[in-house]
Amino acid sequence: MKLNERGLLIVLSGPSGVGKGTVRKALFDMEGHDLVYSISMTTRPPRGDEVDGEDYYFVSKEEFERRIREDGFLEWAEFVGNYYGTPKDKVEAQLKQGKEVVLEIEVQGALQVREKTNDGVFVFIAPPSKEALYRRLLRRGTESNETIQKRMDKAEREFPIAHKYDYIVVNDEVTNAADRVLAIIRAEHAKTERSIHKYKELLGVDFSE
Amino acid sequence: MKLNERGLLIVLSGPSGVGKGTVRKALFDMEGHDLVYSISMTTRPPRGDEVDGEDYYFVSKEEFERRIREDGFLEWAEFVGNYYGTPKDKVEAQLKQGKEVVLEIEVQGALQVREKTNDGVFVFIAPPSKEALYRRLLRRGTESNETIQKRMDKAEREFPIAHKYDYIVVNDEVTNAADRVLAIIRAEHAKTERSIHKYKELLGVDFSE
Repeated sequence: MKLNERGLLIVLSGPSGVGKGTVRKALFDMEGHDLVYSISMTTRPPRGDEVDGEDYYFVSKEEFERRIREDGFLEWAEFVGNYYGTPKDKVEAQLKQGKEVVLEIEVQGALQVREKTNDGVFVFIAPPSKEALYRRLLRRGTESNETIQKRMDKAEREFPIAHKYDYIVVNDEVTNAADRVLAIIRAEHAKTERSIHKYKELLGVDFSE
Repeated sequence: MKLNERGLLIVLSGPSGVGKGTVRKALFDMEGHDLVYSISMTTRPPRGDEVDGEDYYFVSKEEFERRIREDGFLEWAEFVGNYYGTPKDKVEAQLKQGKEVVLEIEVQGALQVREKTNDGVFVFIAPPSKEALYRRLLRRGTESNETIQKRMDKAEREFPIAHKYDYIVVNDEVTNAADRVLAIIRAEHAKTERSIHKYKELLGVDFSE
């Protein structure tokens, strides 16, 4: 069932501290898939041994702004004077190769992607409870109480946005959560709307009825 | 994510010879689920050591016809003078207990169920090719060429009905197919429309927005 099949755009998103990154890593460690990580484009200069086209696509401010004008991003944002975004054409090229492109982004970015694409699969990674989220933010140990409180407030504003996603995966345990995401990917490929064309080819069926 | 959760009604269906039964058996042999098989109601008398409430619910013709009048079946049919059907109340009781109720039925029966319920998950089991289906029917070795041809003709009429199902699972290899069905069950539980209420409870989120 994988021959010449278009890949899926998987948007993993959720509040800060929920463990999107660890779920994504666990997902990539699993077998039986052809996942790739979407590479962002940025105007910030490369750091250390960062490689263009691997860590980021490094472009000039002019180039980035030209792409914005040409609607060339699934989502983009500006942070401390630099642009960051997900280039449409790069993602599209990977999807055409049959790769599942995983986008791990903030809630606001996911909402932008939602508006730009019809065939993304939107997964909201949720904490098992507010307390669990708070504990995770504390455990990072790098932030002030004030920053943690700000993140919690932001998370609470983002919780209700879950209803705009296709799936909600509670990150109770990282392997479970990644397992659920993998099940979602498999199920999405079996969805009739996605598989009917191949099925038609396999069986030579006429759906003119 | 399983506490007090309503089970799913999984309708496994497809043309005769496609291997619905073997996929269902492989599915039940897998771990990590709470699947039950829906028990049919029939007016035919018990055979051998068949047990009422285990193999079938054995009822009188009058009882069955009363249930038909009261819209008490998800689907029913008459075969050689006997009624067979899936009783709504029994299925509903199992779903409420959080069990996934698997219904393995013919295409016409599945279409009846589709009309009677909103929350079923409809999976069309498809052969990998027409030739493969033909070979499987031949391999049974119990039927005349004429019967096999009739089954093939019926299958060809049923192929296009796949577009009325939620998912198409090609039975290329039985473990693969059962694995895909299990992924579908897991993904369906994570669907926002199904999981949002529990999510709301977990996080105390107000979705009035």
